[in-house]
Amino acid sequence: MKTTGYAAHSPDSPLVSYSFERRALRPNDIAMEILYCGVCHSDLHMARNDWNWTTYPIVPGHEIVGRVIATGSDAKKYKVGDAVAVGCMVDSCMECDQCHKGEEQFCREGMVGTYSAPDRITGEMTHGGYSKHLVVREDFAVRVPDSLDIARVAPLLCAGITTYSPLRTWNVGPGSRVGVVGMGGLGHMAIKLAVGMGADVTVLSRSRDKEKDALSLGADRFLISTDARAMAKAESGFDLIIDTIPVRHDLDPYTPLLDVDGTLVIVGQLGPIDEMTTFPMMLGRRRIAGSPIGGIRETQELLNFCARMNILPECEMIRMDEINEAYDRMERSDVRYRFVIDMASLSTPA
Amino acid sequence: MKTTGYAAHSPDSPLVSYSFERRALRPNDIAMEILYCGVCHSDLHMARNDWNWTTYPIVPGHEIVGRVIATGSDAKKYKVGDAVAVGCMVDSCMECDQCHKGEEQFCREGMVGTYSAPDRITGEMTHGGYSKHLVVREDFAVRVPDSLDIARVAPLLCAGITTYSPLRTWNVGPGSRVGVVGMGGLGHMAIKLAVGMGADVTVLSRSRDKEKDALSLGADRFLISTDARAMAKAESGFDLIIDTIPVRHDLDPYTPLLDVDGTLVIVGQLGPIDEMTTFPMMLGRRRIAGSPIGGIRETQELLNFCARMNILPECEMIRMDEINEAYDRMERSDVRYRFVIDMASLSTPA
Repeated sequence: MKTTGYAAHSPDSPLVSYSFERRALRPNDIAMEILYCGVCHSDLHMARNDWNWTTYPIVPGHEIVGRVIATGSDAKKYKVGDAVAVGCMVDSCMECDQCHKGEEQFCREGMVGTYSAPDRITGEMTHGGYSKHLVVREDFAVRVPDSLDIARVAPLLCAGITTYSPLRTWNVGPGSRVGVVGMGGLGHMAIKLAVGMGADVTVLSRSRDKEKDALSLGADRFLISTDARAMAKAESGFDLIIDTIPVRHDLDPYTPLLDVDGTLVIVGQLGPIDEMTTFPMMLGRRRIAGSPIGGIRETQELLNFCARMNILPECEMIRMDEINEAYDRMERSDVRYRFVIDMASLSTPA
Repeated sequence: MKTTGYAAHSPDSPLVSYSFERRALRPNDIAMEILYCGVCHSDLHMARNDWNWTTYPIVPGHEIVGRVIATGSDAKKYKVGDAVAVGCMVDSCMECDQCHKGEEQFCREGMVGTYSAPDRITGEMTHGGYSKHLVVREDFAVRVPDSLDIARVAPLLCAGITTYSPLRTWNVGPGSRVGVVGMGGLGHMAIKLAVGMGADVTVLSRSRDKEKDALSLGADRFLISTDARAMAKAESGFDLIIDTIPVRHDLDPYTPLLDVDGTLVIVGQLGPIDEMTTFPMMLGRRRIAGSPIGGIRETQELLNFCARMNILPECEMIRMDEINEAYDRMERSDVRYRFVIDMASLSTPA
């Protein structure tokens, strides 16, 4: 299937219009028309090869929402017209212990990323959601509940599941004391989801810029992380801290805020973090962890939860040809809180 | 009660003989004659004020074993002649949620350390087990089972419980895959205890020096941490890694060895650890934690477990006046695997 999208051809070139082929439907595939695609900070890291594993040309995008337009001969999960969504992975072995547990993100053979990853069968590089169409194994698509505004669903597929999964893994529920560090695409979802689960939610930020937003999203309080007195008062007050800061930083201000056996989960920064002291960990059996996305089953659970609780990301809709400007703004944290590309702005291939 | 012991009077002076008073028995106290006291790396850190909270003169020692010689009017747990032991703490509030859970080490008002800590009632500094006698709240003494060789019990009170507690917290049992990094006082106990719990135990070390010892202590295998090929092969192979290295170090070689949801527990280094990468944590939901000693109930459980399984530390018995030389040797890791002071070598006060 011929399609069109936007691709980067080198680390330092802007994304430009790009025509390419989607594979012919395999028996267990579906084809979808992409209606919306969210813009994740990882898209930018990958387009610029920040992690040294990008293959060019790269078509980014892993917060993908659309409608089924065709189904493979054995594909039974969806029918033409169904609203579906695809996140950060499009395949895995489906046979190992992790896949059997529904944690395909930890597949022993490695999950296949939605873009810039070799297909398990042909070895061809996958291409992401900054495009008009997608062909994907049906098991890796989730159903978009009817009651959700389809134009705002996309960021749930990465920002949403990346914060939902640790909230579930660490058993957040009514009364849990949750801290959210950083308030961007991931942080604002962490607030909404933790609030939806009944937690007591505190947002930690370096400035008061986003205090009003945080409270309007449902946070119970706002803590300035440079206010030494307020931080000291907050010590041992959290069961879980979701750290969404997407750059290298220092964890030492945050770990003492955890209660005994509490956990700080890093979901933003993939790379180095500063030297730290073990004192808070040793003296309070505190923990530091990382967490990626969630599995397919958990992603579906998230969408159903959001439908039930009427939770949706705060989106700023952009046209496909505004993507390079959006990257620049994202780098300056100038987005409240997630860009979503309206794929209707991209003309269909000739 | 007049007693005698060994004390440091400044960060750079050796320990010397020191006569001092133990408090008069409070109703819930017991007095004990100390028979043996283990020598912990923390004793050395504290004697030299490495953590900046030492009060001089300091009488170190928190691996204390002896016999009850007197009981307070309300003390009912022990009778004169009973073999008892005291570890790193001698008091706590006993009323907070942590104390009620039996985790007095996390007391909300702060546990009282066995030495160089203010008594909860008088504010006087506590003095440790490098001495002939101890007066202690009976709730903070544990019973030494008859079947254990009393001369080798002492190191269980710190090195033992510090490794036993995380093994229990992280549910180690038959089939658990446990790594032990560093093989000193703590490491050799971690091996024996994990083996006793039925775990599959791998010792990680920089050299082959202790391979024979590790295997004779029951370890299933020995892994050279500088052997890149062997380390790569061991990736994702551990449920729990007990990191006993007592100095600043780099965790990056070890975190990839954890399986999904696995935990590396730091029990040795109290202070800075090197900058690290979040990749292994993020991609495998791996965790890093710290853990101090355990609670009183868990310490008694440890002694009972060791009696049942016939587990005892490897001790090198020294005289009290050999303590400064023992510190020097401990700093060079020249001890297999724990010094124990025979308190009979210390003359009774005049």
